[in-house]
Amino acid sequence: MDTPVTIPSEPQALIDLARSGNRAALARLISKIEYRNQDTERLVELLYPLTGKAQVWGITGPPGAGKSTTVDRLLTHLREQGKKVAVVAVDPSSPFSGGAILGDRIRMQQHSGDSDVYIRSVGTRGRHGGLSHSTKEIVLALDAAQFDVILVETAGVGQTELDILKLAQTVMVILVPESGDSIQMMKAGLMEIADVFVLNKADRPEADKLMRELTMMVGMNAHDENSWMIPVCKTEANRDVGVVELLCEVQKHQEHLTKSGKREEKTKTFLKEEMLDILTEELKNSLEQILKTDGGKELLEKLYQKKIAPYEAAKTLSGQN
Amino acid sequence: MDTPVTIPSEPQALIDLARSGNRAALARLISKIEYRNQDTERLVELLYPLTGKAQVWGITGPPGAGKSTTVDRLLTHLREQGKKVAVVAVDPSSPFSGGAILGDRIRMQQHSGDSDVYIRSVGTRGRHGGLSHSTKEIVLALDAAQFDVILVETAGVGQTELDILKLAQTVMVILVPESGDSIQMMKAGLMEIADVFVLNKADRPEADKLMRELTMMVGMNAHDENSWMIPVCKTEANRDVGVVELLCEVQKHQEHLTKSGKREEKTKTFLKEEMLDILTEELKNSLEQILKTDGGKELLEKLYQKKIAPYEAAKTLSGQN
Repeated sequence: MDTPVTIPSEPQALIDLARSGNRAALARLISKIEYRNQDTERLVELLYPLTGKAQVWGITGPPGAGKSTTVDRLLTHLREQGKKVAVVAVDPSSPFSGGAILGDRIRMQQHSGDSDVYIRSVGTRGRHGGLSHSTKEIVLALDAAQFDVILVETAGVGQTELDILKLAQTVMVILVPESGDSIQMMKAGLMEIADVFVLNKADRPEADKLMRELTMMVGMNAHDENSWMIPVCKTEANRDVGVVELLCEVQKHQEHLTKSGKREEKTKTFLKEEMLDILTEELKNSLEQILKTDGGKELLEKLYQKKIAPYEAAKTLSGQN
Repeated sequence: MDTPVTIPSEPQALIDLARSGNRAALARLISKIEYRNQDTERLVELLYPLTGKAQVWGITGPPGAGKSTTVDRLLTHLREQGKKVAVVAVDPSSPFSGGAILGDRIRMQQHSGDSDVYIRSVGTRGRHGGLSHSTKEIVLALDAAQFDVILVETAGVGQTELDILKLAQTVMVILVPESGDSIQMMKAGLMEIADVFVLNKADRPEADKLMRELTMMVGMNAHDENSWMIPVCKTEANRDVGVVELLCEVQKHQEHLTKSGKREEKTKTFLKEEMLDILTEELKNSLEQILKTDGGKELLEKLYQKKIAPYEAAKTLSGQN
């Protein structure tokens, strides 16, 4: 438990306290990043040079595949290895419950005495573009706060989730026999992002069929000796079966990234896209402002009345015409 | 069947021929939009003033829910009403099959003799941003080609799919008893986009449970007398049970949109966002070009070495610094 201290609001002081292991300061720091205010940009600027040491693992899959259970098991095994572990659970919060917050509290209880574990849920509701940014920046904060492994758990395979997973160096995709046609899952873009497949609830009758299909697919995907051969790990996360083996495969993938130079490559691609995203988001915000002016309203009216087409209107708006 | 005529490549002539009912010209027009070339912008500009008459219906839901079967049934009933109907099936094409094209051919066969039906699949593979644009523009072309109803079918509930569905005035969300926890489906953002819920395979044992949950949810969602009360339609699409009733609800929703003024509101929001999307996409493309220059590469190198943070780099890139 933290000694009660005053949490500073000044960015540098807040970061220093969070880095010293003060959980309340870390929570405050992350909230400031999540809820975006005038300090956010400054915080990220200060955090950025402190980052780059943590391993970021992503985990995704359809609802009910056992993501949270698997994350909890991995967390326990990583703690046995002495690692400091943070979990960021991206939870598309329901309109009917305080989903994110509730889930957070339940999960936190199990580890409430452990100062080397930090679990945080972030909600997606109505914040599609922004969520991706703030999640990435929360990971920066956890990296700066010297966690060894940051597990990012996302539900579903939408564009936002895929976008968030770009920051992970290793992505686990969890499937279950009842996930439905594996081809359908592949279509959803899972094949392209998986570094490790997890076949959870592997004791179920249809597990062998999915196992064969997955093994065949990853076999088709390996091109040369230097490329990573995606392993398919069978688990029963609720009984902790196969989770240590899964952990081992993920750690092998991390070694592969370092040896092959792919870690650096991934980081560079991610940073470049992050910068472009910041700019396009800014542009969108400033255009929204222009559209609220008289000139903007006039332009919209012309567009609505089909006097000009969207491309033409866009050009006018951006001052190209 | 079309009389064999030469398909013109000049934009206006191509549009005129497509509007006259020539299917080969329509196919060519749509291909030109889908595969983007120097004509695309001009084509859209010419098409735009000709649009605004068609009803655009969206249909989405998890894999295996029976979307295609339902669309085929709706199509048949709409034809009985004498409507000209187009279907745009957004199919995240698999790396293992020519998914989109294959599906297209199979479905086209049933209606190959009917010149008032047009079915087109578009693939998503690797074209996340672009797909959304081209699909919207394909719908413009079908609208200009005087189809009464354009059914847009998307698989899954990712950001791209949700984005595409913005152009639909009425969105049907299809669920099946085995879709899993309905709360999970809601979390995926389906509640926010549904105008009509379809509970397909309603003869299955667990259907009643899902029906109760859905009914409760939509009940919680209705706020005042003027707002649309989302109906839940039970169907067994493969036996054509409940589909006429579904059609009736969709048509009621269309009437509601017109009466309440929401149709115009929806169109305006859609057009505004479309214009903003065009601009942000253009910005992204031009920034990508700048990053390939010496100055751009230098900036990236500084970013990678953590000499500057992403926000700062973004500002420099956009010339704000």
